[in-house]
Amino acid sequence: MKILVINCGSSSLKYQLIDMDNENVIAKGLVERIGIEGSRIKHETIGKEKQVIEKPLADHSNAIKSVIDALTNSEFGAVSSLDEIGAVGHRVVHGGEDFSESVVIDEKVMEAIERNIELAPLHNPPNIMEAIERNIELAPLHNPPNIMGIEACQKLLPSIKQVAVFDTAFHQSMPPVNYVYAIPYKYYEEDKIRRYGFHGTSHKYLTHRMAELLNKNVEEVNLITCHLGNGSSISAIKKGKSVNTSMGLTPLEGLPMGTRSGDIDPAIVTFIMDKENLNTEEISNILNKESGVLGISGVSSDFRDIEEAAEAGNERAQLALDVFEDKVRKFISSYITEFEDINKIDAIVFTAGLGENSPETREHIINKMSVFGLKIDKAKNNVRGKEQLISSDDSSIKVFVVPTDEEMMIARDTLSLV
Amino acid sequence: MKILVINCGSSSLKYQLIDMDNENVIAKGLVERIGIEGSRIKHETIGKEKQVIEKPLADHSNAIKSVIDALTNSEFGAVSSLDEIGAVGHRVVHGGEDFSESVVIDEKVMEAIERNIELAPLHNPPNIMEAIERNIELAPLHNPPNIMGIEACQKLLPSIKQVAVFDTAFHQSMPPVNYVYAIPYKYYEEDKIRRYGFHGTSHKYLTHRMAELLNKNVEEVNLITCHLGNGSSISAIKKGKSVNTSMGLTPLEGLPMGTRSGDIDPAIVTFIMDKENLNTEEISNILNKESGVLGISGVSSDFRDIEEAAEAGNERAQLALDVFEDKVRKFISSYITEFEDINKIDAIVFTAGLGENSPETREHIINKMSVFGLKIDKAKNNVRGKEQLISSDDSSIKVFVVPTDEEMMIARDTLSLV
Repeated sequence: MKILVINCGSSSLKYQLIDMDNENVIAKGLVERIGIEGSRIKHETIGKEKQVIEKPLADHSNAIKSVIDALTNSEFGAVSSLDEIGAVGHRVVHGGEDFSESVVIDEKVMEAIERNIELAPLHNPPNIMEAIERNIELAPLHNPPNIMGIEACQKLLPSIKQVAVFDTAFHQSMPPVNYVYAIPYKYYEEDKIRRYGFHGTSHKYLTHRMAELLNKNVEEVNLITCHLGNGSSISAIKKGKSVNTSMGLTPLEGLPMGTRSGDIDPAIVTFIMDKENLNTEEISNILNKESGVLGISGVSSDFRDIEEAAEAGNERAQLALDVFEDKVRKFISSYITEFEDINKIDAIVFTAGLGENSPETREHIINKMSVFGLKIDKAKNNVRGKEQLISSDDSSIKVFVVPTDEEMMIARDTLSLV
Repeated sequence: MKILVINCGSSSLKYQLIDMDNENVIAKGLVERIGIEGSRIKHETIGKEKQVIEKPLADHSNAIKSVIDALTNSEFGAVSSLDEIGAVGHRVVHGGEDFSESVVIDEKVMEAIERNIELAPLHNPPNIMEAIERNIELAPLHNPPNIMGIEACQKLLPSIKQVAVFDTAFHQSMPPVNYVYAIPYKYYEEDKIRRYGFHGTSHKYLTHRMAELLNKNVEEVNLITCHLGNGSSISAIKKGKSVNTSMGLTPLEGLPMGTRSGDIDPAIVTFIMDKENLNTEEISNILNKESGVLGISGVSSDFRDIEEAAEAGNERAQLALDVFEDKVRKFISSYITEFEDINKIDAIVFTAGLGENSPETREHIINKMSVFGLKIDKAKNNVRGKEQLISSDDSSIKVFVVPTDEEMMIARDTLSLV
């Protein structure tokens, strides 16, 4: 069966068509600038020439239509008819407490997704907020892009089953001790303020892939998974289930990221608001878009730029890297206490942009954790974007690089449900 | 030499008179409800009957005057004349980046203390904020209680040297990687927003006392010190110096406390403000006075009440204890990475109300850290409020209880400066 995976942002849409008989990607692409002047679709059917089609795309429905046209194009398309597509899997950012796994979308599911919209605007990545501000008619607060994508598919592909795969679902197995905040309990009971965690599809993919690599059942796998990219989160995986994760109510909590602050003294929020006479939207903007390694370094949100500047002697760039790596170490070590015995931890796993592609970052993180007996193998660690054991034979815990594949995880979940 | 130690709150004042020849406390007391109806002084000269004197005390100058009267009272006093007092040591909450150690107070020092007032109101414990709100004339925002106490002493004891001992000073040895927040760097450069840490006098006392107990020089001591009380903080002490601590710009950050939230997703601050239409003062109030274990349990901010409720089957009380203990474990384990070798950590030390007096809390914390080879000795741990090694012989790191004595530390610093 061929499955179409769709990841809708406010003004963009990523997609992949995957043949689940062999898990090969048949086609993939990106729609950019939806509802903005200069919209275009970049499409590639594997084995055929890449296409860039520029045309006005007023909304997500038009964007989905253009994806279907590209996929079925007689010249550069991937299928001869829509009947070949067995199901559509949608990434949905927030499932709240309603969803601990992926679901086939029916009316009840749509209602629940809409219930979580109050939480979701905050949880959506910054670009969504930008677009909401840019064009309130295109993306009103009560109808975020994930829903628009689903509704467009329901309209255009009415006979094909749609599945929702939630970024939060994998972390719903966390125990209360790890998801309850030390604030008045009514905020949990009435407003559902708790740790949810994000990147769930990525952490789940790593868990399943590590089970294969370790030749174990998923239910036997114990991991600390580090998704380090422009957005970063770390999870503790016990017996195949997420028991803790560093992002919280929103993706702002935890590690410092490209532009997000991660953990800070909560009093800083009100201190800066008072000092600069800012409203909540303005301070959120600073903490989400101007902070993180960009904030410290003043150079860039891109770790490659910061590494370059640090090598050239920029002290604040070096400090930004040091702070990031230090906080990664501190989360890894605090998550070790989720286990009873260090020998029961099968592996520490690095993934995502930085985790897969920066041997230096991995080396700095692991080498300063010698207190726990962690040791990197410098030669093995000299790898980018491919699966590899990178710890030395005498490391107390194995360390792996495993490139993540959220689209494949969405496709697998979708297949298993239809 | 006899040294008077003074700790001024907004509406209260604690004092001790210590004979530094033998470090014996000669007299101690508490002035309550300064500037409020029903003010009184509770005084005790050791070996004499305790006194409770009720009289109107309009301000801190009157309060200091009443302390001097009590100390020199011919019947229940401790000295025959003020000449016997060699110096006064004052606790000052915030020294900013100006003070990395205690100082004799001169005009330059007073100026620097006043420079840090912008930071200090936020750093002052909740009761100070309350009094500021209650009586803006008594304690205007630009003249917090610490300064009032110093000024009153300068007026009433003009010939006696005054020393300022800062809660933040001991932590000024932290490296930038541990004090810089991942927010725009201008907030550090221009507004001095950084981690300062508090309870410094307590963490310093523990460091010096542990050096004695271990028969080492202070410069050789490596510790993780846990000050667990109604306010809680944990520090990593490397070669006798604080290299990291859990409180931050203000005492709100870090562990959940009696009524303070500790670390939360910073987005929760603005989320609740938007949801309930609160201003910065109102949300600060919730996070400082209605959160922590009180917020989760709904029972009390006092751990004894919560332990009782948990034993009686109150699930939220149990959850509050579990969350607190879990976060203590996570800070301890993350601070282990400050060291290269677990054998170099001389001890984990517990102190303050809870740390000294709750064997259960200590047992729960240490027993769930067996992953690091920590082991408690149940018999030795059955101790309250006295110095004791409480780990078993085969524990990877020694664990101690050491009652803190901030007044003695202030007196020692004062003595060494005059």
